[in-house]
Amino acid sequence: MFPRNAWYAAGWDHEIKRDLFARTICNQRLVFYRKQSGEVAALADACWHRKLPLSLGHLDGDDVVCQYHGLAFAADGKCSRMPSQDKINPRACVRSYPVAERHRFVWVWMGDPDLADHNKIPDLLKRMGGDGWTGDGETINMKADYRLVVDNLMDLTHETYVHGGSIGNESVAESPFKVDSDDTQVTLTRWMEDTPPPPFWRGQLGKDGNVDRWQIIHFEPPCTIAIDVGVAPTGTGAISGDRSQGVNGMVLNTITPETDSSCHYFWAFTRNYDLDSVNRTTQLRDGVSNIFKQDIVVIEAQQKVFDSDPDAKFVNMNIDAGAVHARRLIAKMIKNENMVEAAE
Amino acid sequence: MFPRNAWYAAGWDHEIKRDLFARTICNQRLVFYRKQSGEVAALADACWHRKLPLSLGHLDGDDVVCQYHGLAFAADGKCSRMPSQDKINPRACVRSYPVAERHRFVWVWMGDPDLADHNKIPDLLKRMGGDGWTGDGETINMKADYRLVVDNLMDLTHETYVHGGSIGNESVAESPFKVDSDDTQVTLTRWMEDTPPPPFWRGQLGKDGNVDRWQIIHFEPPCTIAIDVGVAPTGTGAISGDRSQGVNGMVLNTITPETDSSCHYFWAFTRNYDLDSVNRTTQLRDGVSNIFKQDIVVIEAQQKVFDSDPDAKFVNMNIDAGAVHARRLIAKMIKNENMVEAAE
Amino acid sequence: MFPRNAWYAAGWDHEIKRDLFARTICNQRLVFYRKQSGEVAALADACWHRKLPLSLGHLDGDDVVCQYHGLAFAADGKCSRMPSQDKINPRACVRSYPVAERHRFVWVWMGDPDLADHNKIPDLLKRMGGDGWTGDGETINMKADYRLVVDNLMDLTHETYVHGGSIGNESVAESPFKVDSDDTQVTLTRWMEDTPPPPFWRGQLGKDGNVDRWQIIHFEPPCTIAIDVGVAPTGTGAISGDRSQGVNGMVLNTITPETDSSCHYFWAFTRNYDLDSVNRTTQLRDGVSNIFKQDIVVIEAQQKVFDSDPDAKFVNMNIDAGAVHARRLIAKMIKNENMVEAAE
Repeated sequence: MFPRNAWYAAGWDHEIKRDLFARTICNQRLVFYRKQSGEVAALADACWHRKLPLSLGHLDGDDVVCQYHGLAFAADGKCSRMPSQDKINPRACVRSYPVAERHRFVWVWMGDPDLADHNKIPDLLKRMGGDGWTGDGETINMKADYRLVVDNLMDLTHETYVHGGSIGNESVAESPFKVDSDDTQVTLTRWMEDTPPPPFWRGQLGKDGNVDRWQIIHFEPPCTIAIDVGVAPTGTGAISGDRSQGVNGMVLNTITPETDSSCHYFWAFTRNYDLDSVNRTTQLRDGVSNIFKQDIVVIEAQQKVFDSDPDAKFVNMNIDAGAVHARRLIAKMIKNENMVEAAE
Repeated sequence: MFPRNAWYAAGWDHEIKRDLFARTICNQRLVFYRKQSGEVAALADACWHRKLPLSLGHLDGDDVVCQYHGLAFAADGKCSRMPSQDKINPRACVRSYPVAERHRFVWVWMGDPDLADHNKIPDLLKRMGGDGWTGDGETINMKADYRLVVDNLMDLTHETYVHGGSIGNESVAESPFKVDSDDTQVTLTRWMEDTPPPPFWRGQLGKDGNVDRWQIIHFEPPCTIAIDVGVAPTGTGAISGDRSQGVNGMVLNTITPETDSSCHYFWAFTRNYDLDSVNRTTQLRDGVSNIFKQDIVVIEAQQKVFDSDPDAKFVNMNIDAGAVHARRLIAKMIKNENMVEAAE
Repeated sequence: MFPRNAWYAAGWDHEIKRDLFARTICNQRLVFYRKQSGEVAALADACWHRKLPLSLGHLDGDDVVCQYHGLAFAADGKCSRMPSQDKINPRACVRSYPVAERHRFVWVWMGDPDLADHNKIPDLLKRMGGDGWTGDGETINMKADYRLVVDNLMDLTHETYVHGGSIGNESVAESPFKVDSDDTQVTLTRWMEDTPPPPFWRGQLGKDGNVDRWQIIHFEPPCTIAIDVGVAPTGTGAISGDRSQGVNGMVLNTITPETDSSCHYFWAFTRNYDLDSVNRTTQLRDGVSNIFKQDIVVIEAQQKVFDSDPDAKFVNMNIDAGAVHARRLIAKMIKNENMVEAAE
């Protein structure tokens, strides 16, 4: 249901401290912690010996000590202490996972460690075109298959129906869009020209009158989506590249499968205006958080339908072009992994 | 576990309004609503497109609008609006179900629509011999196979043990009964002659002294049971047909499977005396409701035994003659449906 | 997962009264009660007729009366009353189980009644060398395979890590031990010589200074474990058999499988000193209860790992010698039973 050879966001940088942090990713229980150097380590969260979750234990320097019988494991997973024995069994170890820290997230590689290339970490900053942005976000523990969240973000016509009071109006569902896609990404671009802004964007722009509004959705498999959004007063040049009269945000999303039917959905809303206002940052985070609560209801309800009827099938319409391409890239990653595995 | 070609009570008439009402029947999620004409419609409760329960959406005229992407479906299940498309995909539809309204209930036909004959709706009024009755009832969401409720109602000797303080006494268990049955119904008749009335009936009659008491149970497959009950002072002619000195009630029951191990059990207690007293109606509804709470304990406990030991088997005694016949009719309906299905 | 031909503790003697007491043992629902003579009876907790748990009924003399239809069953399981019938069906019965009462526990034999030899009841008193002991205990309803509790008790090095503030210190994990085992028992003996006592034992001894400390674990399959524990001031003769300067306790444990993944764990802490102090008894019971709460966390966490990954495997270290022998005896009992069953 998910590729393993991928970087997944395990948590926000501030969540992982000099302490044991348990999180299940792709059906595997992991424990994360920071070493004395500040670097993050990730181990399988079950002692080699009797399977007690290591996260119930404690840190001793850079080692994790099991709470049950005192076995200690280094950050590379090797057993470094085996009480009541002269020798440590050389096979005693737990799996360790490649970890990296980038852009406020700690990322973990769930597959073959030899393939864990840091260049493959989703570059959220690049999506924003470098520095000069600020914002904040939250984590949603969604009781749903992570791909239902991907579907949701790849088709923003749902704003019209799910978020009618804030960011959605008729023009989102009615405006045409185009999709560009290759083996590494999907980009969906929608311009809503000369349209009344919905309440959220009217508030951000601080001006009455029609706007040119854009939504440019970048999908990077398996589950990172950056959405370039904004409005500018109609005819002030945004469509041809000059957004200077408008307001521009980036909705950054990365969704990490927890189990087959749950995920951790990390999101942030960043902007390149009014950068010094903590008040604005907080208002935007809370505002978007309330909007996303409406998505939780919808997506978790879909999951329940599938739980009670595993044969339920999706049908695709024109609006699903982005989601169809995104799911195709995910399926391809999984298929490639299965072929490699079968060949081994 | 249940026949599909049958009318099932979906809800009380007052429960289904100009609003979306979700109910699971025979393991299928349905959504009910009233059209502008007042007629009731029933659709599968999952959008054709992405399976969101339609019951999370809203009504637009006689159409249901999905809350996720705005697809609309008419009462016949056909998609009437598909946002962001010029054409509606002609295959876009959800299943619609035949519905009828009769005797305070909305009924739905779960099987082949061509067989949905309104004459097959259980005629609860006829059971009472026409008008001149009043009463009220409730719904119990029982966590049990609907057939355990049928068993319960087809053998009222349990009143002696489960309802000793109200409607049960030794004479129920000790009195003989006879069963008449054919392909369409089961009738079980029990007369308890010259017996002390239990507290409930003493109260209804308002007179001391022994009574002739009757219980005449009519079962109509798969799951409707009308019970003609009452007492009259001993020897005043009730046995030979003159009930004028007594009090007469009808316990009307129809049980709708929700899942394999749960059901909605609709019941009402009606009477043909003291018709104008709302006080009497309320007291009777609350009194019977308290009696049925004792049945819930027993029936749900049986279900738990079967949940933990699916091989547990029932044994039949003389008292089970009515339940045995009723279950035979249910099994026959299911078998016939399976044979037709296999032949297709 | 558990032998059936074994005596299992069903409850404390005071728990089973002139009343119906339901308990699931080895996946079977049982009902226990005292007859008028005071003797305990045990029956399958589902009526022969319609499977209602008999524990929902009531006692009539020495018979259990089913709450649903009034069938009565004698203590030997035979139906003694069948309402509404002239004759009792001679096959009407529920299974009855051999029961015995010994040492504050009621024991039940779950297998072939012909093999239910009272001499096989774990003799907890003998373990203590006869009378002259006092103490008290509790029941833990552990959400875990009973064998995880056996593992826990057969390897007390976990005291160092789980119970560091009370009974554990480094010397437990570091001291050598020896294991003696045959077909009927496992004994693991550990002496910690000239060692500082942990807080619990310092308190019991009431004296400063190093001690000689012992732990002698007796396992009797499938699941009774008596642990002879104590300390004496170093060099006062405890090692050679004179414990008169020390304090001696017995931790008596018997663990009864409830389901595949839960058990009732009965324990008592007894001592042979300060016999008249109810205060001491209470303090010890509460103190040990708090210590065992730490074990519950650990053992239930192990179970959850197995629930989410049934393929998770244990690895054994030197410290597991006792648990390995104990599990071998349990597995042998189960294997023998399966062979007998296959031959029948």
